[in-house]
Amino acid sequence: MSDMIRNTRQTQGEVDSMFTDRWSPRAMSPDPISEEQLAMLFEAARWAPSCFNEQPWLFVYATSPVGRAQFTEVLVEKNRRWAGQAPLLLFVLARRTFRHNGKPNRHAVFDAGAAWMSLALQARRLGLYAHGMAGFSQEKAYGLLQLSPEEFEVIAAVAVGRHGDPAELPDDLRQMESPNGRKPREEIAVRFG
Amino acid sequence: MSDMIRNTRQTQGEVDSMFTDRWSPRAMSPDPISEEQLAMLFEAARWAPSCFNEQPWLFVYATSPVGRAQFTEVLVEKNRRWAGQAPLLLFVLARRTFRHNGKPNRHAVFDAGAAWMSLALQARRLGLYAHGMAGFSQEKAYGLLQLSPEEFEVIAAVAVGRHGDPAELPDDLRQMESPNGRKPREEIAVRFG
Repeated sequence: MSDMIRNTRQTQGEVDSMFTDRWSPRAMSPDPISEEQLAMLFEAARWAPSCFNEQPWLFVYATSPVGRAQFTEVLVEKNRRWAGQAPLLLFVLARRTFRHNGKPNRHAVFDAGAAWMSLALQARRLGLYAHGMAGFSQEKAYGLLQLSPEEFEVIAAVAVGRHGDPAELPDDLRQMESPNGRKPREEIAVRFG
Repeated sequence: MSDMIRNTRQTQGEVDSMFTDRWSPRAMSPDPISEEQLAMLFEAARWAPSCFNEQPWLFVYATSPVGRAQFTEVLVEKNRRWAGQAPLLLFVLARRTFRHNGKPNRHAVFDAGAAWMSLALQARRLGLYAHGMAGFSQEKAYGLLQLSPEEFEVIAAVAVGRHGDPAELPDDLRQMESPNGRKPREEIAVRFG
């Protein structure tokens, strides 16, 4: 993680540090991402598990200034204020039906979440951060990407880049610029019987 | 991965090997999982990212013979044939609404997918495998867990354990006992503009 921010996350016992070293900064350095790094991010996502090995995830990404500007327009104002700086923006989509029989895939979004997590962890391996965003217009996203909401669900936007200088963030965003905490583990893992 | 199975996965360029070392065996060793390992699996899941840091995931797990037998009953027959052997069985659920305002959380299942991926990768760090299953009765799961389908979506079942001896699997399952492939990366990552 950045030298500028202290990670004060408290774990409940041991865990691989890759999970607590991943967080969602808003200060993004405009340093470009190489084609090799880009390939590795999607390669990690590619190997995620999915129901019937359907691989329902689709990543549509922009690295060019024009493409990133168009993606940024789809975000809510609060995200527009910081995410446009990132050298890579992308949307995560899930295909709603199985290709082998056309039936609804009720695991598509869950499996896309697994692929997204893989991308986020591979990003840290490259010294990058991936910040997922729910705040965007689905309607604008379908229009821009020219994809059908019947065929795909557009789930999340993601900004990827090196950590930038938090001092350059607006005051309100700078105050949120640190890794956040979690509920106690007992609330999310319950023993049965 | 197990010495008994060769991993023939072909990557398209470099990627951290943790992503290709994770796969979904059916030959599960009955060796128990320690309380420390159990805690680490859920600790990894706990640090996943989520919309508004809602942490909508819930893992209900069984390690006792009685609890595992009850969980196994909920699975479809094809999964019952191998998963009952695993020392840890669990269900992954997502809370449908935000706790802070009661509104629908349309990212809950996606975020639960991220938490599930974290658990699966932490499993490999411990020499374990986590095999996710879509094949189970949602209705039976809600009944057994005494959770409301209005409050939670039960998404996946998971068997966790060390890799067992594939020779002990029934013939048809043994023939599937190897890491599977993926679509070309170009089909899942598309450049915009």
